Amino acid sequence: MESTKSIEPLTLRPIGTIETPFNDSKGMPIQPTGAVDVVGRVIVDPAYVEGLDDLEDFSHLILIYHFHRSDGYRLKVTPFMDTAVRGLFATRAPRRPNPIGLSVVRLLSRRGHILHVQGIDVLNGTPLLDIKPFVPAFDAPAAERTGWLEVNSHKATALRSDDRFKPEE
Amino acid sequence: MESTKSIEPLTLRPIGTIETPFNDSKGMPIQPTGAVDVVGRVIVDPAYVEGLDDLEDFSHLILIYHFHRSDGYRLKVTPFMDTAVRGLFATRAPRRPNPIGLSVVRLLSRRGHILHVQGIDVLNGTPLLDIKPFVPAFDAPAAERTGWLEVNSHKATALRSDDRFKPEE
Repeated sequence: MESTKSIEPLTLRPIGTIETPFNDSKGMPIQPTGAVDVVGRVIVDPAYVEGLDDLEDFSHLILIYHFHRSDGYRLKVTPFMDTAVRGLFATRAPRRPNPIGLSVVRLLSRRGHILHVQGIDVLNGTPLLDIKPFVPAFDAPAAERTGWLEVNSHKATALRSDDRFKPEE
Repeated sequence: MESTKSIEPLTLRPIGTIETPFNDSKGMPIQPTGAVDVVGRVIVDPAYVEGLDDLEDFSHLILIYHFHRSDGYRLKVTPFMDTAVRGLFATRAPRRPNPIGLSVVRLLSRRGHILHVQGIDVLNGTPLLDIKPFVPAFDAPAAERTGWLEVNSHKATALRSDDRFKPEE
């Protein structure tokens, strides 16, 4: 029996909020490569401030967050960077069965429970779920193949989001 | 008011299960670099099979999963790879406010709803939350600084887990 229906659901509570200049998904960058200069703030709940110690010694962080404006999903989507229909899990589309996003960003500075970051590509007010240090030895293998993004990933530098991943009415 | 207490909790439902040779956290690798040759299977719920299309064109995947044996957390921990106490969010420790893990693994093959992967460092039976394609242009910036892991990350190749992240009785 390989169904996962019997597996317990997991309830997560945000540990903070990500502040960015993007108040609308329309016109926002679709990946950090399109937001290289964009500066934002990660406001961590002060209750967790101690857990941020030593983070300032890392140049990059992995932010894990809730795509909070995303609702529902389709298993086949046409990504921003492509014209063909692709399997959802081969894309970074926000509308997913579990609407979790991740972005690797540069840490500029830490002031107490507030992190200043650069290269942030999420909506203003995005609920933060976790922060991990980015460690190339763990997180950055030499990838030989990047599928449909092979010829398309450079487009992320210029492309901006449109409305296609908004919740359906 | 910067507290996140008012932010809605998020309920996630696993989309599959990760099968590995590691039935006990004791003795398992602590990062994919210590599990380079370890082969496992990602059993995705057949309901999502269509969403896996196009994934086989990527050499590496990001798996996001629930540290399901993890319970509770401390904001200061002594990581496996260090002897000093560190802020929790500057570590990859499984006991976190939101016990979510991520691993970048090599995709060996796909057979329908089953993915064969290599370099997998999680416990057998780990609930899978999401799969994303690994795209170096998005996910692998040139990190100049990796903090306390600068001199310690190579240890992940040889180090094995012990019991320190087991739930407390």
